[in-house]
Amino acid sequence: MAKTKYAVGVDLGGTSIKVGLVSEDGKIINKTSLDSLAKEGPEAVVGQIMKGIDEVLKGVKGKIEGIGIGSPGIVNAKKGIVENPPNFQGWEKVQLGKLLKKEFNTAVFVENDANVAAIGEMIYGAGKKLDYFIMITLGTGVGGGIIINRKIYRGESGAAGELGHVTIDHNGAQCKCGSLGCIEAYAGNNYLVERVTAELQDRPHSKLNDLIKVEGELTPKLIHDAALQNDEYSKQIIVDLGVKIGHAIASIINVLDIPNIIIGGGVAGFGDLLFVPLKDAVIDRVMIPMKPKIKIKAAKLLNQAGIKGASALVFYRK
Amino acid sequence: MAKTKYAVGVDLGGTSIKVGLVSEDGKIINKTSLDSLAKEGPEAVVGQIMKGIDEVLKGVKGKIEGIGIGSPGIVNAKKGIVENPPNFQGWEKVQLGKLLKKEFNTAVFVENDANVAAIGEMIYGAGKKLDYFIMITLGTGVGGGIIINRKIYRGESGAAGELGHVTIDHNGAQCKCGSLGCIEAYAGNNYLVERVTAELQDRPHSKLNDLIKVEGELTPKLIHDAALQNDEYSKQIIVDLGVKIGHAIASIINVLDIPNIIIGGGVAGFGDLLFVPLKDAVIDRVMIPMKPKIKIKAAKLLNQAGIKGASALVFYRK
Repeated sequence: MAKTKYAVGVDLGGTSIKVGLVSEDGKIINKTSLDSLAKEGPEAVVGQIMKGIDEVLKGVKGKIEGIGIGSPGIVNAKKGIVENPPNFQGWEKVQLGKLLKKEFNTAVFVENDANVAAIGEMIYGAGKKLDYFIMITLGTGVGGGIIINRKIYRGESGAAGELGHVTIDHNGAQCKCGSLGCIEAYAGNNYLVERVTAELQDRPHSKLNDLIKVEGELTPKLIHDAALQNDEYSKQIIVDLGVKIGHAIASIINVLDIPNIIIGGGVAGFGDLLFVPLKDAVIDRVMIPMKPKIKIKAAKLLNQAGIKGASALVFYRK
Repeated sequence: MAKTKYAVGVDLGGTSIKVGLVSEDGKIINKTSLDSLAKEGPEAVVGQIMKGIDEVLKGVKGKIEGIGIGSPGIVNAKKGIVENPPNFQGWEKVQLGKLLKKEFNTAVFVENDANVAAIGEMIYGAGKKLDYFIMITLGTGVGGGIIINRKIYRGESGAAGELGHVTIDHNGAQCKCGSLGCIEAYAGNNYLVERVTAELQDRPHSKLNDLIKVEGELTPKLIHDAALQNDEYSKQIIVDLGVKIGHAIASIINVLDIPNIIIGGGVAGFGDLLFVPLKDAVIDRVMIPMKPKIKIKAAKLLNQAGIKGASALVFYRK
């Protein structure tokens, strides 16, 4: 039998850097988490990344296949350059790929974090057997990655897959991107919390109010908890969320002819309460020949998506 | 200098079949038009296609490079099969490619008509110098073709590019596809005429009423004529149309990262009255890094798009 191969995955975030050593079959062997030091400038950040990689490689015998890095901001994957990641100070263009290659003498792959999530699901997760799929990540923002024939689709300048900024109502809710009615302006965590907070003022009897008193603040998870406790308003919020996301996905499917959808991010943890109305809404709105083909799956990598997805870059490119 | 190459282009429609002999630089050398005989079944239709090809090849010396066919309905481009074109009777699956290859002993390429329009613009028209562009055809329906790195993007099952069924308002106008608020339900000729007809009842002073009396019926062209005669209502209709189309295009650009758009079909003849508000609407709604890159062009092949686009299939595949 062939020897197992290993790669390092680095999940670069504004608060913490998570690093893991991952086997080709998607198991995390070692992992660590460090402060990003994002306010101390790129040198400090790169130093932390290197420290993290050293830690997970401690005691490892033999060569790894490479290092993969998922980063926020604009990533030039070809050149391994990360530009202006939000919340990182004094960072314009950093040649992250080159710096790490020099330090560790191995192949280095850098990719933006939305694409990393899609590649991670393709290599280890719910997209293992799919040649074409659309990955949608529901978090603070709504991000996306498009897999066409087992390759990430980058578009003309590397900015493709802004699925959160597909409009469902061109006269609808104000989105921070400047447009109106983007699906992110309904399904992004902050927008959702803001809307529910406002609506709760007219719903003093919702169980959600009690849960907020206990937990201190409203989070998407709390809406799910209240729905599971049969709170009508919370259930209705989740159904409405599913319908809206479904309508955005239907537009995307009509453009791309890709009926397999993988949904990740915190809100995806709402389970069937979200997935059933979401799938129904997609089927209701796509073109007739597409209806029987629609498949909506939950992502599999969950809170390991960052490290595993980044390590998947190495196995994906090989 | 190399000898000029020639191809035959066949534009298969429910009423007529247009056939032309086209040179590699996009000039129509010979052309003809025949009744489709769509109600007499596939054998009659194929007979007419062959008759048309014979006509344009009459007296032509030397070999042609091949035959290209643009067809409505579902087209399996790989196998040259046309399925269930609307308005053709008794037609299930016809191996158009095989039949014509046998008859004329040359390469035959079959493609659906929305893709043909995009390929035509890429080979001879407004997309000649573009590696990536999105072609939108505004007619009875709103169709589309996506060019990625000089190739037509077909999606997983050949159904990609249904750009007319991108929603701008998920609670909006009923579309014949079953969904609500598709851009086709606002910009498709029949929907547009229907809406304007209804609205005109409250606008007895619009110049459009006079033009309808002269012409006998309302057409999109008449709206443009009235706008050119400074009819406020007609101008407002065209601006509104441009804004709506622009908002649909913005969603598509955010997904695909393709900022070059080519617009064809009758309504594209509205010129700057349409194109200026349309472009402004796209720029208003796309993600910030995309804004300076947006380019909206009118298609160049116009009413020769059918024949030229079909012949372009031959030069495209070579």
